[in-house]
Amino acid sequence: MANGAHSEDKTLQAICYKRGSLQLLDQRKLPLQTIYLDIKNAKDGWDAIKEMVVRGAPAIAIAAALSLAVEASNLETFNGTAQDAVSFLSQKLEYLVSSRPTAVNLSDAATKLNEVIKKEASTASEAKTVFEAYIMAAEIMLEDDVASNKAIGSHGASLLQNQLVDSKKISILTHCNTGSLATAGYGTALGVIRAVNTAGFLERAYCTETRPFNQGSRLTAFELVTENIPATLIADSAAAALMKAGCVNAVIVGADRIAANGDTANKIGTYSLAVCAMHHGIPFYVAAPLTSVDLSLSSGQQIVIEERSPKELLHTHGGLGEQIAASGICVWNPAFDVTPASLISGIFTEKGVISKDGNDAFDITGFVHKVSGNV
Amino acid sequence: MANGAHSEDKTLQAICYKRGSLQLLDQRKLPLQTIYLDIKNAKDGWDAIKEMVVRGAPAIAIAAALSLAVEASNLETFNGTAQDAVSFLSQKLEYLVSSRPTAVNLSDAATKLNEVIKKEASTASEAKTVFEAYIMAAEIMLEDDVASNKAIGSHGASLLQNQLVDSKKISILTHCNTGSLATAGYGTALGVIRAVNTAGFLERAYCTETRPFNQGSRLTAFELVTENIPATLIADSAAAALMKAGCVNAVIVGADRIAANGDTANKIGTYSLAVCAMHHGIPFYVAAPLTSVDLSLSSGQQIVIEERSPKELLHTHGGLGEQIAASGICVWNPAFDVTPASLISGIFTEKGVISKDGNDAFDITGFVHKVSGNV
Repeated sequence: MANGAHSEDKTLQAICYKRGSLQLLDQRKLPLQTIYLDIKNAKDGWDAIKEMVVRGAPAIAIAAALSLAVEASNLETFNGTAQDAVSFLSQKLEYLVSSRPTAVNLSDAATKLNEVIKKEASTASEAKTVFEAYIMAAEIMLEDDVASNKAIGSHGASLLQNQLVDSKKISILTHCNTGSLATAGYGTALGVIRAVNTAGFLERAYCTETRPFNQGSRLTAFELVTENIPATLIADSAAAALMKAGCVNAVIVGADRIAANGDTANKIGTYSLAVCAMHHGIPFYVAAPLTSVDLSLSSGQQIVIEERSPKELLHTHGGLGEQIAASGICVWNPAFDVTPASLISGIFTEKGVISKDGNDAFDITGFVHKVSGNV
Repeated sequence: MANGAHSEDKTLQAICYKRGSLQLLDQRKLPLQTIYLDIKNAKDGWDAIKEMVVRGAPAIAIAAALSLAVEASNLETFNGTAQDAVSFLSQKLEYLVSSRPTAVNLSDAATKLNEVIKKEASTASEAKTVFEAYIMAAEIMLEDDVASNKAIGSHGASLLQNQLVDSKKISILTHCNTGSLATAGYGTALGVIRAVNTAGFLERAYCTETRPFNQGSRLTAFELVTENIPATLIADSAAAALMKAGCVNAVIVGADRIAANGDTANKIGTYSLAVCAMHHGIPFYVAAPLTSVDLSLSSGQQIVIEERSPKELLHTHGGLGEQIAASGICVWNPAFDVTPASLISGIFTEKGVISKDGNDAFDITGFVHKVSGNV
């Protein structure tokens, strides 16, 4: 990526970047309007994250990093040393992290970028060199995330293709939005569906509405329609009936966090799909980059589930619209649930598929060590 | 019910009737406004059904019958014979059936009422006697439906109370609306919850949102709040996680139709709840009057599932509001699903609980014959 171009990617782009210029798809306007906003500097990036123009943990981190890369690219003059450039960039990164303090990917990205510029400044004397190093590092983050998603898609599609038996094509059910709109591009679970479609053996994608925030009907459906992937939207509660009707050959979901034993936290409703898939003998896969694996958690029991505002169920538009539910009713609105490893058939990662061993267990620690060369 | 009064019932009333007067709760305005409409005659009844002021198959039939009873009560003069009264009433009944031609309960009620007045006219000479007979028969329909629901609630609550082990109270998950707003009063599955609450051993009722038409968040939640029953609303997709968290001791749902083997058609999402309940070892009950049993169907495979408009998922307010989902996406929107008898622990009816025999099967035909005296 000599010039940071990101145009070879044919999938829907929420993040359109080339050196010196960044546009973000305004996801607040989806699915009714497709509007890109120009992001010229870290301030614009901060606003876009704060105002939910961009969402999804990997997407937020990369949008933030790139907003500052654009600002650095377009600096006309900078009177200062390499150390001054480090200070300038570090302060902007700290400011960007404040747009969503709880987003781990965002603070991780800021930490990594800070390390890059400090290292560069230790040998360089010119500010320009530090800015160049920052821009390159931010661009590599973008490329790496897309490449990682494409590798997940490729590994997932290969496994599914190898398991084709009688049928020549398969239908896949997915949940929430794990596509171009949640990542730097291509997506995880939706990336596997893209890969299966590109490989020519996708019969149909089914996406759930994904209550209460409707990421499925608003965002996943939008991506599928935009790319002409054969797709059908269902109510979350219709998934079991769809499976019973024989319309689902595999379920693929993303992951918020994967514990060392394979237990997976993901959008509320994932666990229900896993139980129903098991009941119908349908394989259930998780698609996620290895950064989603948290080896410090021995099982999903250690994952704390965030509860979100009752308003998401009581009002339209994820809580922002008019009231639809009865006043005074209590609400339980967990953001995520945990699907135990026992219900998961395999985990698609950018380094390959993690399958179960003879004891019906995942050796994720072993897999991670193996692929990172620390056997 | 000497004067047709219906006021001893403390539960939320969608149908408020005493001889000569009928008010229907305008369900289109729920849950935000509680407005009753005066129904003075069959024309008002026809409009109320057509315009969805009243919904739910049993409620529609009874509202129609009572609208004509009110008209008959308030007739100041009627110059005609008993046969003329029959003609008058029959024509009005035919007209009322035309408000919802597909509603079986409505046409069944009209048929029964026609038989009553024809029989009366065969021995009476005065029109007044025929009108009296009609009014009494319509009032008995109302009373019978409420009494039947209360009996369902009583049988269900008794069984649940007998099964209490360690805990002194139980929490019950239900789906859709099966309460006072769907029946003549009290309700079926929600009637059991009422009975358990009255008996003092309800810890908490959980109701699903019930997408895509939100009968749970709009109507069931409204009933539960109105009657101060401890209750929590969840997204349909959160039910499995709620079960896993140990918060559900029983699932109770209504029924659209029950086949001879116990397979049960009910609101979409019922099947998913049954699969998840089975996975968690939670008993799953169906609560319905015996009129919901269709012995002509040997199994649920013979039940044809209606598909409803994609708009219900694409727009707010069950399809009537603004667009929320991506344009151009296909939709699968079945109104019902079929839960196999194998996932059902028992069926609560007004004549008692239908339990499984030694072969894990329901003998519904035997039960029906036994309780109707045709052993």
